[in-house]
Amino acid sequence: MFEAVDHVGVAVEDLDAAIELYSESLGMPLQHRETVSEQGVEAALLGVGDSHVELLFPLGDETPVGRFIAKRGPGLHHTAYRCRDVALLIDEQPRRGIRDSRVAFLHPASTGGVLTELVQPAGESSS
Amino acid sequence: MFEAVDHVGVAVEDLDAAIELYSESLGMPLQHRETVSEQGVEAALLGVGDSHVELLFPLGDETPVGRFIAKRGPGLHHTAYRCRDVALLIDEQPRRGIRDSRVAFLHPASTGGVLTELVQPAGESSS
Repeated sequence: MFEAVDHVGVAVEDLDAAIELYSESLGMPLQHRETVSEQGVEAALLGVGDSHVELLFPLGDETPVGRFIAKRGPGLHHTAYRCRDVALLIDEQPRRGIRDSRVAFLHPASTGGVLTELVQPAGESSS
Repeated sequence: MFEAVDHVGVAVEDLDAAIELYSESLGMPLQHRETVSEQGVEAALLGVGDSHVELLFPLGDETPVGRFIAKRGPGLHHTAYRCRDVALLIDEQPRRGIRDSRVAFLHPASTGGVLTELVQPAGESSS
């Protein structure tokens, strides 16, 4: 069903500092940076093999990531799995994710406390 | 430096129920189950492409994962990156991880709040 861990989402309080940490200290190349208004974040993708760390900086306190940081502090936010057709797996319409991917989120209440994202990369579809 | 997201570690309160959730609902095959005394957990690996979800059930309340669940509830615990030689990257000796891997943990204080594990699979070494 899932092809890979597409990315691990990490909530951060300072995007530039986090990019420097992951690229300099952990040797992960910065591959992409984008404001994803639909998710209320400015995000950066750092490469790890065929997967990514997705750094998430909230655009405001009342965004999902802003509330997450206020409650739990910066750190692991969600995990995302790559699939060929998000729409096949959910009951609703997928929405736009970073780099024009199609994404859907599964609520932590249904996945043992883990916010889980399904990602269909742009240009990939089984239909 | 890192070849892949080796696994995403998830703290769980009921290992059998979590295995059922990930294998039945999310379609990830159970590939391995082991008590890792060194880390105070019974762990299970579920396959996602070349990566894994690692479910972590604490062997006691005073283990690291037991304390994590008491404080934050079940959910995302750590993220692990695969590398060829853990010992090259750290100042101390790596320890034994699941499936005879060699592992080291980077403290969240040095990685933006994310407990980070480095994993050298058994049998892989650059030396």
